Amino acid sequence: MAKYVYFFGGRKAEGNGKMKDLLGGKGAGLAEMTNSGATVPPGFTITTEACDYFYRHQQSLPSGLKQEMEKNIRKLEKIMNREFDDSANPLLVSVRSGAKFSMPGMMDTILNLGLNDKTIKGLIKKNNNERFAWDAYRRLIQMFGNVVMGIEKNKFERLLDKKKEERKVKFDSELSEEDLKNLVEEFRKVYRKETGEDFPQDSLRQLTMARDAVFKSWSNPRAITYRKLNKIPDNLGTAVNVQVMVFGNMGNDCGTGVGFTRNPSTGEKKFYGEYLLNAQGEDVVAGVRTPSPIENLKKEMPEVYQELKDITTKLEKHYQDTQDFEFTVENGKLFMLQTRTGKRTAFAAVKIAVDMVKEGLISKEEALMRLAPAQIDQLLHPILDPKVKVDVIARGLPASPGAASGTITFTAEEAVEKSKKGPVILVRQETCPDDIHGMDAAKGILTARGGMTSHAAVVARGMGKPCVTGCEVLQISEEDKEIIVDGKTIKEGAWLTIDGGTGRVISGKVPTVKPSLSGDFGVLMKWADKIRKLGVRANADIPRDAKTAINFGAEGIGLCRTEHMFFAPERLPIVRRMILADTEKERQKSLDELLPLQREDFLGLFKEMKGYPVIIRTIDPPLHEFLPRREELMVEIALMKERKEPEAKIEKKEELLARVNQLHEMNPMLGHRGCRLGITYPEITEMQVRAIMEAACELAKKGKTVLPEIMIPLVGHINEFKNQKAIAVKVAKSVMKNYGVKIKYLVGTMIEIPRGAITADEIATEAEFFSFGTNDLTQMGFGFSRDDAGKFIQDYLSKGILKSDPFQTIDQDGIGKLIEMGIKQGRKTRKNLEIGICGEHGGDPESVKFCHQIGMDYVSCSPFRVPIARLAAAQAVLEEKI
Amino acid sequence: MAKYVYFFGGRKAEGNGKMKDLLGGKGAGLAEMTNSGATVPPGFTITTEACDYFYRHQQSLPSGLKQEMEKNIRKLEKIMNREFDDSANPLLVSVRSGAKFSMPGMMDTILNLGLNDKTIKGLIKKNNNERFAWDAYRRLIQMFGNVVMGIEKNKFERLLDKKKEERKVKFDSELSEEDLKNLVEEFRKVYRKETGEDFPQDSLRQLTMARDAVFKSWSNPRAITYRKLNKIPDNLGTAVNVQVMVFGNMGNDCGTGVGFTRNPSTGEKKFYGEYLLNAQGEDVVAGVRTPSPIENLKKEMPEVYQELKDITTKLEKHYQDTQDFEFTVENGKLFMLQTRTGKRTAFAAVKIAVDMVKEGLISKEEALMRLAPAQIDQLLHPILDPKVKVDVIARGLPASPGAASGTITFTAEEAVEKSKKGPVILVRQETCPDDIHGMDAAKGILTARGGMTSHAAVVARGMGKPCVTGCEVLQISEEDKEIIVDGKTIKEGAWLTIDGGTGRVISGKVPTVKPSLSGDFGVLMKWADKIRKLGVRANADIPRDAKTAINFGAEGIGLCRTEHMFFAPERLPIVRRMILADTEKERQKSLDELLPLQREDFLGLFKEMKGYPVIIRTIDPPLHEFLPRREELMVEIALMKERKEPEAKIEKKEELLARVNQLHEMNPMLGHRGCRLGITYPEITEMQVRAIMEAACELAKKGKTVLPEIMIPLVGHINEFKNQKAIAVKVAKSVMKNYGVKIKYLVGTMIEIPRGAITADEIATEAEFFSFGTNDLTQMGFGFSRDDAGKFIQDYLSKGILKSDPFQTIDQDGIGKLIEMGIKQGRKTRKNLEIGICGEHGGDPESVKFCHQIGMDYVSCSPFRVPIARLAAAQAVLEEKI
Repeated sequence: MAKYVYFFGGRKAEGNGKMKDLLGGKGAGLAEMTNSGATVPPGFTITTEACDYFYRHQQSLPSGLKQEMEKNIRKLEKIMNREFDDSANPLLVSVRSGAKFSMPGMMDTILNLGLNDKTIKGLIKKNNNERFAWDAYRRLIQMFGNVVMGIEKNKFERLLDKKKEERKVKFDSELSEEDLKNLVEEFRKVYRKETGEDFPQDSLRQLTMARDAVFKSWSNPRAITYRKLNKIPDNLGTAVNVQVMVFGNMGNDCGTGVGFTRNPSTGEKKFYGEYLLNAQGEDVVAGVRTPSPIENLKKEMPEVYQELKDITTKLEKHYQDTQDFEFTVENGKLFMLQTRTGKRTAFAAVKIAVDMVKEGLISKEEALMRLAPAQIDQLLHPILDPKVKVDVIARGLPASPGAASGTITFTAEEAVEKSKKGPVILVRQETCPDDIHGMDAAKGILTARGGMTSHAAVVARGMGKPCVTGCEVLQISEEDKEIIVDGKTIKEGAWLTIDGGTGRVISGKVPTVKPSLSGDFGVLMKWADKIRKLGVRANADIPRDAKTAINFGAEGIGLCRTEHMFFAPERLPIVRRMILADTEKERQKSLDELLPLQREDFLGLFKEMKGYPVIIRTIDPPLHEFLPRREELMVEIALMKERKEPEAKIEKKEELLARVNQLHEMNPMLGHRGCRLGITYPEITEMQVRAIMEAACELAKKGKTVLPEIMIPLVGHINEFKNQKAIAVKVAKSVMKNYGVKIKYLVGTMIEIPRGAITADEIATEAEFFSFGTNDLTQMGFGFSRDDAGKFIQDYLSKGILKSDPFQTIDQDGIGKLIEMGIKQGRKTRKNLEIGICGEHGGDPESVKFCHQIGMDYVSCSPFRVPIARLAAAQAVLEEKI
Repeated sequence: MAKYVYFFGGRKAEGNGKMKDLLGGKGAGLAEMTNSGATVPPGFTITTEACDYFYRHQQSLPSGLKQEMEKNIRKLEKIMNREFDDSANPLLVSVRSGAKFSMPGMMDTILNLGLNDKTIKGLIKKNNNERFAWDAYRRLIQMFGNVVMGIEKNKFERLLDKKKEERKVKFDSELSEEDLKNLVEEFRKVYRKETGEDFPQDSLRQLTMARDAVFKSWSNPRAITYRKLNKIPDNLGTAVNVQVMVFGNMGNDCGTGVGFTRNPSTGEKKFYGEYLLNAQGEDVVAGVRTPSPIENLKKEMPEVYQELKDITTKLEKHYQDTQDFEFTVENGKLFMLQTRTGKRTAFAAVKIAVDMVKEGLISKEEALMRLAPAQIDQLLHPILDPKVKVDVIARGLPASPGAASGTITFTAEEAVEKSKKGPVILVRQETCPDDIHGMDAAKGILTARGGMTSHAAVVARGMGKPCVTGCEVLQISEEDKEIIVDGKTIKEGAWLTIDGGTGRVISGKVPTVKPSLSGDFGVLMKWADKIRKLGVRANADIPRDAKTAINFGAEGIGLCRTEHMFFAPERLPIVRRMILADTEKERQKSLDELLPLQREDFLGLFKEMKGYPVIIRTIDPPLHEFLPRREELMVEIALMKERKEPEAKIEKKEELLARVNQLHEMNPMLGHRGCRLGITYPEITEMQVRAIMEAACELAKKGKTVLPEIMIPLVGHINEFKNQKAIAVKVAKSVMKNYGVKIKYLVGTMIEIPRGAITADEIATEAEFFSFGTNDLTQMGFGFSRDDAGKFIQDYLSKGILKSDPFQTIDQDGIGKLIEMGIKQGRKTRKNLEIGICGEHGGDPESVKFCHQIGMDYVSCSPFRVPIARLAAAQAVLEEKI
């Protein structure tokens, strides 16, 4: 028979730290801690396999599980010398979820299980602390009622607040034992009223119900959202950890805390954490009271502090990674409740990885594998422009680095709504898992309560968003939608800036600057560069972006979109004249005006790129993008007519509308764009190639190296490419002759039309390089309009039809096959064909790895994602060795 | 050394009838006729290889050609006992083009070459007919000037017309020898003025220049257009035929004519043709004079008639096909000028093919191969509704069958323009090759002059368009844009109907009916059915179309578009309510109203299809197609505001606009449509499947056989299909349970998204059939919006980037590969997967053959193309055996 329950306790555990799949992260950690000699409250873990069974069998559990659980309870009773439902010496336990991957705040926890009318007496007697016992009991009813039975939290909270008002006190801890006893009675009434039954008095029944609630919580909407955001598979399931209760809230020789072996924000190798005396663990995490830094524990409980430090150092060494731990001190005795790999900021991750290599703990390769490439994005987060004077109105804890400005919103819903119109800062007393979507939508998060490990802080770091927590000087009224600070009132909608790196809260909007990369990060990047085989280029249209790209380590430009230059206000009128031209001659006139402007653009790019290859794409978007909008013209004309404005004026507008109508397309993405424009209007291609080659020749004449690569977009048929290449080669030759220089240049194409990938062998007979335009290839391969698909892709993700948005991560099973086909076919005809990618996917780590696997030469991405691509490319090589 | 010149004459030819590639159709025919004993004016053919050389070498010819030509001229002189430039007995020749495939009227011809100031004397003396000689000379200068030197025709015509006015005569033939001699002088002046040189007096020089003009004419725009329309490769080239002149215009014992061994309009086995006494061949073809039927020749020249009949009968037997011949009678002696396979109407083609099988001339297989599937379309051409009384205003020759109504236009350009707005009839004195594009645009062609073999008649038959020629009672003024008939004036733009089957010209618009198929055609179709392996189904949405399909031999419905039913005026409001519904409940209400209507639709279809499979596709188009247009709403609202209409009214409109905006898509073809709708709104799929299954079960309960195949559109990912299949199967089971019957049904998918084809192996694990939606597959595979691509596809065709419109004929090299991949992958997973095609390509013969080659089970096309598909499918089998 399958084993569903694993015991730990008495310095020995049935499981171990490697069994995360089966026991979950928390369960494996508890087993490992137990085995490694730490004092861990004993308990047992019900496996994720049981959870899997639960979901496969209409929420029922395997037949043997009941006996197995009871056997383990007996074992616990024996070790602890306490018993379930024993009025003299009752056994109390906690029940916690624990999945393979940590999902903070997502799963529900219940404490103090085993308390009932009978056992409370034993608890009172044992600790001689009636107040504590009643408080524990009311917490149990409250948590159990909420988590297991689904009773709204505020049904209980209201009664608690009322009691505090009656007693005219501020904190729970100021209530008397009588008050709490009273509350227990009232809570039980609520329980009865809401559920139609009495609060269960049988400990085993409490445990069974709690266990099932944990299993069910795997599928609650918050958990599903978190998994979706973090790409955790839905079928892993959670384990259930049942553990003997230890109490941090039985007096001032008790306490509870959390910590990290290294600073999760900076990576500094310094014991780091927070604790609260006389408190339960949830008080720390929930941020209701602001905890003390762990250094204070050294003074308050020096032995406990030393033991904690020794144990966690040992654990770090064992796991070869920073540990995030939880502990409780019960009457002066330290209990380890949890250890797991510590989450950290990207900045900290880099420092820790480099430090650990220096310390000889891990190899360079291991260090590189430790970083999630997506996380690096955080390092590129803006900081406040140091040259700007700022109006600091408050200081909180620097919970997640980066700076952000936005208008103030007070609820998650509003944050989601208003973020559509502009950046917002979500301001809350404290956040809870229900706020996730609002945090996701906001540019930054500010809370009045909670520490560095509060929900807000943990989640914001995970998301790579600036966050300031524990800013207690702010009086936040979510009801009145205002913040009062220093007597001043700041209303909803006002601009606010937070600096998650320093904890500053600043009034108004402050300009930010992007940081440069150096120090540990530079070291890591150099390691990555030595290992990776994939080249990394950047998509850059203007010299400034090219410069950023070079600074971030780009080895060329993979895509310069020439048409972006057409949108500049001084150029748009010329472009419009070009489009509206009735004759080729008129069109040529506008093109002649554009030529010197484009030449300047390219000159700037070539200068910045210092001889690195620069791929310049000829015009791509449909022409009507440059014209006034059709429907607006229609409205305008209708109104002019209604107002009987002069005929001549109306006629002129109507002529414009007629031309716009002519260019109007039902499906512009599949319309007259890309090389199709160049084929219909060869003079546009001519002008662009001339500008490219003139700029290149000008520099070449001055002895500079230039390597232009002319890219023809949207090629689906070899003949399209031939047509455009002929123009390019003709112009290039004539320009080089005029300048009297010869330079190396390539003419290649984007493979972004499915037919282009399918007939890549033919196309490669003429094209000297391929660049996969995976945005369009995804668009056409899936038949998803990028502009419109958002509407149903969300639906597809939530219904599990797609695992991820194919516009974010290459769909390897489908579009990926097209790309592979394109590469294989292309190289069949032209062995040394240069192959890269220039879609958004070029900056997506998973996609970068895929590009490596299928043998591309380089990826090209936005300048700020170049470091991400460099790291991902190195990891791709390392992963092959595993 | 290569041989470039082939002689024929003296009952012996160097070439033969099989050498069409090298000698062109005409040259091979002349050789064959010569070899078979017919009296053919001797001559020689310069090969298509010379033409090829000409184009490959900057319009120069191989070095030996000059001598070869001169050698052949000497040979001719010897046989004829005449000599070039001999003032006593001059050798005159014609020069004609002749490509492998007949291109009537496309290439240029020059007659009377060898005439000059010296040789005209010999000609006069020899025939003792000065008038004839001067007429021949002025014709030569005119033709040579126009064709070789590019002088505008009317530069000569004007002088001719002026002369006729001076002399107050109507016909050229009424001019005197003096007049003609005079004209020769005037024509030479024109020649000198336009070219800067004198008309060449050296016969060999004339011949050389004419030969090169023929080669050049291969590339004139008319020829290119014709080849494009008829899909003739551009690289075949033309041969040049140089042949001794015989004259049909030397008096009343002379004449010229054209004919067919069988009636090209009806296929009747009856000697058929027309001739003109005392005329040159071009007079017949150009339709300037209306010729006599060939029967008259029996009376006028009984011996010539008999000889002609004998020779052509022999030729038909030799070629095993109807011959189209040209002849000239010179002083009572018959000369055969040309024989070739006779063009014919589809109706005639069918009859001739079946007759020839009966006559033992050809096999059934050969008969099937004789028909161009596209031509069959003509058999399905409408005839005038026999129940309607018509106002016949004139009668002409029934030149090409079918009836058509349209507004009158007088020029090709206008026909092209106006045909964009509605059907037009092109009305001309006579047509010429310059009119091709107008004829292509018009629904029918009517000419006042010309016979059954005039340019208008030949081209119209080729195009399968109704045509009435030689309707001489019409006074057509192309200048004043009117027709005068019987004293009444009919203006441009008025409606006119022509009946090409009877030659009637009818005032106004007349309803037409489609003919049914029977007789010889039925016989042929049965032969085709025995041979073909591909099934043929029809695309039909309503019972009436299903009935037509069955009549035309369809073996099932390959595509029923359910949404077409939604556009019915009484249903559209319900559909709109469904779309605009805010809640699922509201939506369900509308769906409940639609259910019984859809059930009725399907009931009708199933009844008509009598147990044949019926593929019904669930809703496909984006929802906004059913809503009012966005820009119109915007204009409406702007005007309402301007007019200060009541707020409430405006608000209601604005609400509607808001919803329309919400559904608006940038690229609807790639948007929220197909199965994406069914996934977002499962209740729509549910309703549709319910309607299908209820209709099927109702009939099944009555003992009828039904075979519904439910088709999910736009599937690109297996999970999309799974989602929709689950709904379909659930509903189907529940309906069958309710009705207490079990029926066979399939759930399959369209493969129309590139990703669908690429991942067909996965999809086939669930899908029970595939139907390739090649419209969308082409659209997305090429990235061509079907709605917009017309703009540049024309450009692509004319620039040679594409060989044919991929929406008309499957692009085998690209989209075809995707389809092959889909089939191979699909069958890999599911061996007995039913595979078909339901795009427009299902009715395109070339595409049908491709579908056979790649192993599809069936094609589905519009009902009227079912016979075409049946024939093409049979030919596909026969072509494999070759």
